[in-house]
Amino acid sequence: MSMHREDYTYFHSIPTRWNDNDMLGHVNNVIYYSYFEAIVTKFVQEEMGIDWALAPEVPYTAENLCRFKTALKFPETVEAALRVTRIGNTSFDYAIALFSAGKDQPAAEGHWVHVMVDRESEKPVPLTDDLKQVLKKHMTT
Amino acid sequence: MSMHREDYTYFHSIPTRWNDNDMLGHVNNVIYYSYFEAIVTKFVQEEMGIDWALAPEVPYTAENLCRFKTALKFPETVEAALRVTRIGNTSFDYAIALFSAGKDQPAAEGHWVHVMVDRESEKPVPLTDDLKQVLKKHMTT
Amino acid sequence: MSMHREDYTYFHSIPTRWNDNDMLGHVNNVIYYSYFEAIVTKFVQEEMGIDWALAPEVPYTAENLCRFKTALKFPETVEAALRVTRIGNTSFDYAIALFSAGKDQPAAEGHWVHVMVDRESEKPVPLTDDLKQVLKKHMTT
Amino acid sequence: MSMHREDYTYFHSIPTRWNDNDMLGHVNNVIYYSYFEAIVTKFVQEEMGIDWALAPEVPYTAENLCRFKTALKFPETVEAALRVTRIGNTSFDYAIALFSAGKDQPAAEGHWVHVMVDRESEKPVPLTDDLKQVLKKHMTT
Repeated sequence: MSMHREDYTYFHSIPTRWNDNDMLGHVNNVIYYSYFEAIVTKFVQEEMGIDWALAPEVPYTAENLCRFKTALKFPETVEAALRVTRIGNTSFDYAIALFSAGKDQPAAEGHWVHVMVDRESEKPVPLTDDLKQVLKKHMTT
Repeated sequence: MSMHREDYTYFHSIPTRWNDNDMLGHVNNVIYYSYFEAIVTKFVQEEMGIDWALAPEVPYTAENLCRFKTALKFPETVEAALRVTRIGNTSFDYAIALFSAGKDQPAAEGHWVHVMVDRESEKPVPLTDDLKQVLKKHMTT
Repeated sequence: MSMHREDYTYFHSIPTRWNDNDMLGHVNNVIYYSYFEAIVTKFVQEEMGIDWALAPEVPYTAENLCRFKTALKFPETVEAALRVTRIGNTSFDYAIALFSAGKDQPAAEGHWVHVMVDRESEKPVPLTDDLKQVLKKHMTT
Repeated sequence: MSMHREDYTYFHSIPTRWNDNDMLGHVNNVIYYSYFEAIVTKFVQEEMGIDWALAPEVPYTAENLCRFKTALKFPETVEAALRVTRIGNTSFDYAIALFSAGKDQPAAEGHWVHVMVDRESEKPVPLTDDLKQVLKKHMTT
């Protein structure tokens, strides 16, 4: 079941780039994950307050998935949308959607699993209460 | 349950590139899909005999997924492995794994769903018997 | 000699993406060309009115160059700037610069040479007078 | 004046990837720099013995250029070739060429300028005599 724009809590506009398109004249499917990553990493940096370059604990990606529904094409601007769907002990999940401008049905939908790890040991570490609070604000029902 | 190398039927060696690595010093997770795509598109062109530039019917990607287990790093060469897991009327699925050299456990595993479409109309079309025969050869139990 | 923002006539804002950064924590130098290409292809489509997917004559890239001065870093938004520096019979040149927000000195400067070619034959064709008029508007002294 | 294969001293084979191709059905020109970077960074790591992840002094890119002569296309394997053309106090230059398999004339030629910098301060540092010796071996006349 597709979600609508109002089901998401966090947004990021991404202008497509010429070489996002592939030989078939659409945005290449690998690039959809680059858009997913753009919103996820911005969320981590700006909402969760984690500095990717310096923080001792950073989220690593454990799994992601994308379902492709309608084609995105350069030169449009894509609106990426995100919400949190699960908060675990050391990991949490997002639902992500990509919308063409002015469309209510997503061009693509997927999920992304982040595990918080210690940067040195690369072992999972528990989510702090502060981070859980931030994530809860982006969890809709 | 992880699969081993001998569970796959088709292979492709992919040297990593410097800018495959991201700020965390590993191959960026988006790039794993680029490796998936490298083996999938080579399989379509070489095993299925479909010319991506000219064929009137080409496979479009409907869904893909990746689970990240251990990090790949430039400058290693990645071995991508593929097998067919489902043959439908208009669509079919692959299982894909990425191995570091000399490792029997995959660094990443995932799946990829292809739908055969008419290039002009972009509507699904049935798989021909010839294509089903090719796919069956790569379906292992 | 570095140019300033006011020396350029056409602009495009480009939000950086997480995987634009490389292992050294800066935007990878290959990606600078992706930013160059973003503004150049947008200029061709929007100012010159050439549809990349359908036009019978399209510009091919003959040469480009970039000088890297200061590092760009995710998550900043880059302002790309362009002007035309030469209008030939079948080819024309741009100067391009990339600015960090609020900076007057460019982080990178370069050039790009486009040759108009027939899409079928891939042979150079003369620039039409209409296109030369458009290009002249973006040529500053 | 184009150089031939025998003018170069260091080589690296690079299989193209599906999404290296762009809407025009050729390898996208930005990706040529990714191939340049692949051979340059491999040369630095393997010939100069510099560990990109750990070395206190690493080369930063100051400038690069590419001239596009004939189109590369997925799924071919590209042979990248490199030689050193200048050894300065803190910087040095490479000439780079990309060849299609079995061709003696390059599909593209360019140059790349590296400046040795201290990783912490990001200031230029002199090339050691050992590094100059390595570079000299790859300087042909």
